[in-house]
Amino acid sequence: MAIDELIYRIKYLRNPSVVGLDPDLDFLPDCVWDSDASDLTSASQAILRFNCEIIDAVYDIVPAVKPQIAMYERFGANGVNAYADTISYAKAKGLLIIADIKRGDIASTADAYADAHLGRVNIKGMRTPVFDVDFVTVNPYLGEDAVAPFIKSCRKYNKGVFVLVKTSNPGSGQIQDLQVLNQKVSDFKDSGSKESDLTKSISLYEHVAALVSEWGRDLIGESGYSAVGAVVGATHPKQARRLREIMPHTFFLAPGYGAQGAKAADLVKGSIVNSSRGIIAAYKNPKYKDKFGPEQFAKAARAAVLEMREDLRCLEI
Amino acid sequence: MAIDELIYRIKYLRNPSVVGLDPDLDFLPDCVWDSDASDLTSASQAILRFNCEIIDAVYDIVPAVKPQIAMYERFGANGVNAYADTISYAKAKGLLIIADIKRGDIASTADAYADAHLGRVNIKGMRTPVFDVDFVTVNPYLGEDAVAPFIKSCRKYNKGVFVLVKTSNPGSGQIQDLQVLNQKVSDFKDSGSKESDLTKSISLYEHVAALVSEWGRDLIGESGYSAVGAVVGATHPKQARRLREIMPHTFFLAPGYGAQGAKAADLVKGSIVNSSRGIIAAYKNPKYKDKFGPEQFAKAARAAVLEMREDLRCLEI
Repeated sequence: MAIDELIYRIKYLRNPSVVGLDPDLDFLPDCVWDSDASDLTSASQAILRFNCEIIDAVYDIVPAVKPQIAMYERFGANGVNAYADTISYAKAKGLLIIADIKRGDIASTADAYADAHLGRVNIKGMRTPVFDVDFVTVNPYLGEDAVAPFIKSCRKYNKGVFVLVKTSNPGSGQIQDLQVLNQKVSDFKDSGSKESDLTKSISLYEHVAALVSEWGRDLIGESGYSAVGAVVGATHPKQARRLREIMPHTFFLAPGYGAQGAKAADLVKGSIVNSSRGIIAAYKNPKYKDKFGPEQFAKAARAAVLEMREDLRCLEI
Repeated sequence: MAIDELIYRIKYLRNPSVVGLDPDLDFLPDCVWDSDASDLTSASQAILRFNCEIIDAVYDIVPAVKPQIAMYERFGANGVNAYADTISYAKAKGLLIIADIKRGDIASTADAYADAHLGRVNIKGMRTPVFDVDFVTVNPYLGEDAVAPFIKSCRKYNKGVFVLVKTSNPGSGQIQDLQVLNQKVSDFKDSGSKESDLTKSISLYEHVAALVSEWGRDLIGESGYSAVGAVVGATHPKQARRLREIMPHTFFLAPGYGAQGAKAADLVKGSIVNSSRGIIAAYKNPKYKDKFGPEQFAKAARAAVLEMREDLRCLEI
């Protein structure tokens, strides 16, 4: 299972961090642009070249990369090509891929997304892999029938998902922190909550967490964690600790470290921690700027990964 | 504003329906396949040809088409090309485009999606349109800061969004029907709810509805409807009537008519009604099968649109 492989690599490399490949054009030094053109093709080529150099510089010290598909989709079909090529390149270097797609739709549509990103697409009986990543992120607002096609693909192709539970953005609480009534999710009984608590209100993210735990119950691997994981922003340490209790077998994908402000002390056991611009744009950071010029952006990224690994050394898996 | 243009066209054509361009390969007759190949390229070419013939057959009787991006993304970059070409073709025929993308992410990422789908992408100071559709669907789970970049693009480029409120799928209630406490959304005061109701619980979808109404408050056009619309499944007629009260100035995109089971009587005032397979796969329906062979799939689609228009004649805009 992908989750066991991920945890094995985290332990082997002693590094629970993932490099977010979110190539904002502001992060790209001049040297990755092949031409002076400013069209969708040249931008797509530039981000692919940038990514490949970053991957070359970090593949031996991180377990996985997390491309954010929006940063590629933005350039249309050309960008999606660069996205697919980035994934192929990273896989060839032995990295696991967590595709940050945050898709969520009714079942027949979710089937199409799951086939493309995790499974195989059926064309006249031929089953063809398309993006074929190891993990995707999914949005739970449409409910279980919208998440089920992804979980089915996890089972069939040994993949994993991370369901959005508590996101890292400042406004996440507007919906996710709402207090909801009359929960009947059996998971709460296992997680230290008293039966009497069940008739009181809990937050929406806690409710979603209990569902996520339930959805992943029969997909727990040798690592003790389920193929159904959760996105829990590192920017909400108190909530993350509570969510660790509700979801004891759920691995967390924790965005928000570094540029979004979260620190090592904010993280909870059983998390893989994402940093995007903190790593891929490290050469712009005053801390690395004197040592690495723009052409050495990949070396700066490696230095930033090593520093992050050191910072996360106490994080328990 | 796109919303005023949409409503103008609905009234002019006397047709509040939108054709869902969700080309499942099972819907495609043999005649749209150029070759015997079963790869991503040939599938993408086939869906584009299928779409263009459908568009040719219906462009003069419907105000808009709604491509579901998953059905294209499924075939990778080739599919996204077919998606972009479908949009260009439909626009050239004078149709408005409602892109069913259901994106939702933290602000910096939502910016990228909004730029690509509604606005312009900035490459070295050159601002390039990418998909450039009229409306997109967006997911509210991450809260207002995740929706704001789309609304900003609506304002800047005269576009529109439809925020998921109550989706058409059978399991939508699992999250969306949860009862939430202590609402403080000013909109409820305007919508016939008594002040005392505010301390009681309401459902999550009602809460989201009040937010959607608030987000769209200063983007109400000459039509009386806002650029910020809502997705309200036609499969939930009782809830839709309640949502019409909460969101008096919000236009609804109503999926679920036809194949998903909703009828004309289930629809509420101020809706554009989607049908996908009911129209594009009409030639497979026993009702049209005798009259139209597989090569006449586009004619069957036109017949299905005319029947739907007739069925929706009493729907008030």
